[in-house]
Amino acid sequence: MTAETQLQELIAGIVPVDAAFEAAARARLDALSKPPGSLGKLEDLAARVAVVQHDVRPAASPSAIVLMAGDHGVVAEGVSAYPQNVTWQMLANFSAGGAAINQLAKHAGARLVLVDVGVATDTSALAGVVQAKVRPGTANMAEGPAMTREEAAAAILTGARITSELVADGVRIIGTGEMGIGNSTAAAALTAAFTGSEPARVVGRGTGLDRAGVAHKATVIERALERNGVAGLDPLGVLAAAGGLEIAGMAGVVLGAAAGGVCAVFDGFISGAAALVALRLCPEAAGYVFPSHLSSEPGHAVVLDALGLAPVLELDMRLGEGTGAALAIEIIGAACAVMSGMATFAEAGVSEADDA
Amino acid sequence: MTAETQLQELIAGIVPVDAAFEAAARARLDALSKPPGSLGKLEDLAARVAVVQHDVRPAASPSAIVLMAGDHGVVAEGVSAYPQNVTWQMLANFSAGGAAINQLAKHAGARLVLVDVGVATDTSALAGVVQAKVRPGTANMAEGPAMTREEAAAAILTGARITSELVADGVRIIGTGEMGIGNSTAAAALTAAFTGSEPARVVGRGTGLDRAGVAHKATVIERALERNGVAGLDPLGVLAAAGGLEIAGMAGVVLGAAAGGVCAVFDGFISGAAALVALRLCPEAAGYVFPSHLSSEPGHAVVLDALGLAPVLELDMRLGEGTGAALAIEIIGAACAVMSGMATFAEAGVSEADDA
Repeated sequence: MTAETQLQELIAGIVPVDAAFEAAARARLDALSKPPGSLGKLEDLAARVAVVQHDVRPAASPSAIVLMAGDHGVVAEGVSAYPQNVTWQMLANFSAGGAAINQLAKHAGARLVLVDVGVATDTSALAGVVQAKVRPGTANMAEGPAMTREEAAAAILTGARITSELVADGVRIIGTGEMGIGNSTAAAALTAAFTGSEPARVVGRGTGLDRAGVAHKATVIERALERNGVAGLDPLGVLAAAGGLEIAGMAGVVLGAAAGGVCAVFDGFISGAAALVALRLCPEAAGYVFPSHLSSEPGHAVVLDALGLAPVLELDMRLGEGTGAALAIEIIGAACAVMSGMATFAEAGVSEADDA
Repeated sequence: MTAETQLQELIAGIVPVDAAFEAAARARLDALSKPPGSLGKLEDLAARVAVVQHDVRPAASPSAIVLMAGDHGVVAEGVSAYPQNVTWQMLANFSAGGAAINQLAKHAGARLVLVDVGVATDTSALAGVVQAKVRPGTANMAEGPAMTREEAAAAILTGARITSELVADGVRIIGTGEMGIGNSTAAAALTAAFTGSEPARVVGRGTGLDRAGVAHKATVIERALERNGVAGLDPLGVLAAAGGLEIAGMAGVVLGAAAGGVCAVFDGFISGAAALVALRLCPEAAGYVFPSHLSSEPGHAVVLDALGLAPVLELDMRLGEGTGAALAIEIIGAACAVMSGMATFAEAGVSEADDA
């Protein structure tokens, strides 16, 4: 069976959340010993988790961050401030516990799962890195497709498989994160292709480009979209043409979470583009997908808009790795703690408002 | 010695943070294995804690929330949707662990300290409530001063004393929270008095007023400010005229934190008004004061503006209790974890940007 056929089976197995359960969730939230609605977005987050879990006492623990790493042939076009080998170097940093995501996942109480789904160089010497390389980096999308449809489907299935193992381990909420020099170019290409936005509107500084570098990045994306004829392609075709292996892997995490009935929290721009891929492949998964922060990469707002989601946090972050997802998991965890642990007005013996 | 004299001594002992230390903090943040500035406001928060602690490896743990409760004579004017006895009932709910702040403090790993600094009824039967009642609720500010200067100073000193005990116990970061039916009226009166804003601009729905109720609240405040001649008063006089005992207590927490060299995180509108009181009494304490969220009470933005601070979170919350402070302590803790735990580029063996 081809990877693409297996992907179709995965998608066919995804059941939308039971939106009707929201009434029960809201009824409990309104009965809790606080003025109705006074916890604002915290109540909205808790209600959404309650709907996913079909439980008015939702839980956001245990949690995990799946960090997918992959390389990008498009770096040959000079679209990144960092050399490609930084993907491997940062994966080594994650493996040794020295990066931002290590500290933030630990602070959030989330397990961190590192995955090589497409790093250009060998990572087998790095402790704790799941070896799942589909190919050693993508091809240069400015010259042709970044990868084949089968490779894109295989990378998605890798993410879904890792996620189903986490779900089997009891994980209730899974964040996505990534590392891949050049991947803000791939994310911008996918965002432009899926939303119809001009590439110039969705490109940003990435890890540190100057103004000329950003303009160059936009022209590279325009060329790639045209060369690959993305306008006529289905979602898997767009992903294969202009995506990345780690982006496909993260789309697989989202689909795997939906298939397993757990919440998926995406991180910044790159992870957001992966969520967009997942929901273009399978709109039925939407109820399982949670935003985290608003990245300072301009394309991220376009992605959130396309997904119809408002960010939980706005901290001007633009690091990736899953850092925003880890912070959002803390906030979502707090929201679930409130909804599950609070007493109702009746239980607490507290008078309700005069107008209630 | 009068309480007012003791307050002057407390204020005189507060030493501003060493702003020059920020350069060392920023140098470490820029050396960490991530693009410079890519963690946005997380870096700003970590740098501020580092300055307070004079340590490039700051820590936000152990932490505590001090929740001050007091009643307000101004409820006689019909400014709240809830009956006054809800102050006691909610304190009982806090004591029993059933309120939002119990869940959020626990989720943040923060100790919760409950203080009766001015509840109208006896709270001595409630487990874990520090008995520090200065008077059983304020007088009606619309008819005359809410309390005497000595009472206001005594309530401030109560907050400072409790804080100094927490600092002696090793607590590094302290959030403020409150409970007091009618206290959004007192906070609005103080905000109008200190910033010169029209009362109508700083009043809001509180725990659940309708539009007519909000307008009535503004006229009550106008009357109170005029009757007490607040325009000619010093900060302690303004607090005594139009404040609340729990607001004075929270101002004391801020001053106590500054005196003890630890960070104070204020919560929403009421706690923010208390921070404003503290910094009008002692501008030297500013470096120790951290915002948390932006409340949906309109006066909160005016307070933040007057303090020159931008919120960490915007979650449309308007509950008080310290709920926003507890969430912000999680984010500040994450920021400190990043700054303290990450490897530098050199330590991690990661290449820096081409233009670095």
